[in-house]
Amino acid sequence: MLKFPDHQVAGHQALRGQLGPQIDESGRFYKPLQQDERGSREAAFYNALLHSNTKVKKQILRFFPAYYGTQNIEASDGSGLHPHLVLQDVVSDYVKPCIIDIKIGSRTWYPQASEDYVAKCLRKDRGTTTVSLGFRISGLQIYQAENSGYWKPDRNQIHKFTVDDVRSVFRKLISSNQSVCNSDYGGIFPQLLELKSWFEDQTDFHFYSCSILLIYDGESENKGGNPHSMIKLIDFAHVFSGNDVIDHNFLGGLCSLIKFISDTPAIHSTKP
Amino acid sequence: MLKFPDHQVAGHQALRGQLGPQIDESGRFYKPLQQDERGSREAAFYNALLHSNTKVKKQILRFFPAYYGTQNIEASDGSGLHPHLVLQDVVSDYVKPCIIDIKIGSRTWYPQASEDYVAKCLRKDRGTTTVSLGFRISGLQIYQAENSGYWKPDRNQIHKFTVDDVRSVFRKLISSNQSVCNSDYGGIFPQLLELKSWFEDQTDFHFYSCSILLIYDGESENKGGNPHSMIKLIDFAHVFSGNDVIDHNFLGGLCSLIKFISDTPAIHSTKP
Repeated sequence: MLKFPDHQVAGHQALRGQLGPQIDESGRFYKPLQQDERGSREAAFYNALLHSNTKVKKQILRFFPAYYGTQNIEASDGSGLHPHLVLQDVVSDYVKPCIIDIKIGSRTWYPQASEDYVAKCLRKDRGTTTVSLGFRISGLQIYQAENSGYWKPDRNQIHKFTVDDVRSVFRKLISSNQSVCNSDYGGIFPQLLELKSWFEDQTDFHFYSCSILLIYDGESENKGGNPHSMIKLIDFAHVFSGNDVIDHNFLGGLCSLIKFISDTPAIHSTKP
Repeated sequence: MLKFPDHQVAGHQALRGQLGPQIDESGRFYKPLQQDERGSREAAFYNALLHSNTKVKKQILRFFPAYYGTQNIEASDGSGLHPHLVLQDVVSDYVKPCIIDIKIGSRTWYPQASEDYVAKCLRKDRGTTTVSLGFRISGLQIYQAENSGYWKPDRNQIHKFTVDDVRSVFRKLISSNQSVCNSDYGGIFPQLLELKSWFEDQTDFHFYSCSILLIYDGESENKGGNPHSMIKLIDFAHVFSGNDVIDHNFLGGLCSLIKFISDTPAIHSTKP
């Protein structure tokens, strides 16, 4: 039995009869394969990642959703069978998933892109924090409390985020989640540093318009367990060969994110 | 007594009655102050760098030319007195200076720039290795041997450099200079790593269109002395306040340069 994801914060959504991702009970996430080169590039990337197992270490592979190939399933828009990427539903075992989707890089266009595509991306990059910060928030939900539920600003609001707004988001994340301000941002910080080390060295892939998801459990503090937080990279429709050069665009944005987070003071929750 | 610099590899030159830099016998370099905001920004940057002594450590200050203020001197174009930045002539104590001027960053335009300026820079960035490598060579001279002198390709040739050409330049540098392939690229490598650490942390300055000079002495191996090599940052007409964000554009390019150099095999000289 497939259903629409409860915790999708960005990207195409399977609402109002549109084509979008679906999930099942076993923790799989079905992402419609885009019918142009974006779809083939994304599938090719997951295959390259898996089949270059010897090159990409397990330590790094854990930062990507598990990939189970492609499968024809009934599309969410009722248009019949459609090929889908079968991926791990990265939030399936979270009780109250807090998610921040951060599109990394100070540019989202790739060198081979057409003039029009570059111009379109550049306009968006200059209009958001992409150029100034080297990353922008594409979506988010933060669990606040039983009565108030999730804070999940809409797309238009997020597109207008300034650098200060982005800082506020991280502040809100910290103050709504006790586990985050303890132990290295809830364990996220060392993961980001590991990812950074990889990007300082790897010259296989260049990731444009790719996101890092920061995922926490909004209920973990109640259970007193581990922070249970992780990062996952998603959205590989614009991944290209690195041609023996590092992905300096992604790396620069990632370093900026790391510094930005580490400069956001971990104020303890003001909740009673 | 002022004269034209012998070893300038990029930038405006004081030739054919044009306005350009001059040097004196005491190791000072006089750079004409540009009469628009570029001049005032460059002077302001040097002042900020010096007067924030407590913030910018000595270890980092050595990567910048020493600055002695501004001074009105006779302009090289014969137009009379003109204000100049008085800087250290960074190659004055080199016998056969080998210099590579590398403009760092995958974009040379700054966020506040006009549409026209952005478009102009973007065209150049896409037409050179700036976008692909995160840096481009702006000028160079490599001392080859007594009889062949310097290899100093002209501006037009350099503007057309591909990624492969850039790799060839580093190869040529290595094979023409024994000291470079020994001991960490002639001591350059640890300096680049120190600079990288600073850029991972500093949020005071964003450097657009700024260059790193790699400087070696083409004769050092003969004297059996230290490699006598260093890096210097130059050209600060487009330095802006960092507003609490790291310079991810410069940092990304710098990381790419470090990786690119470290991947260029240190073949030993084939000279007899």
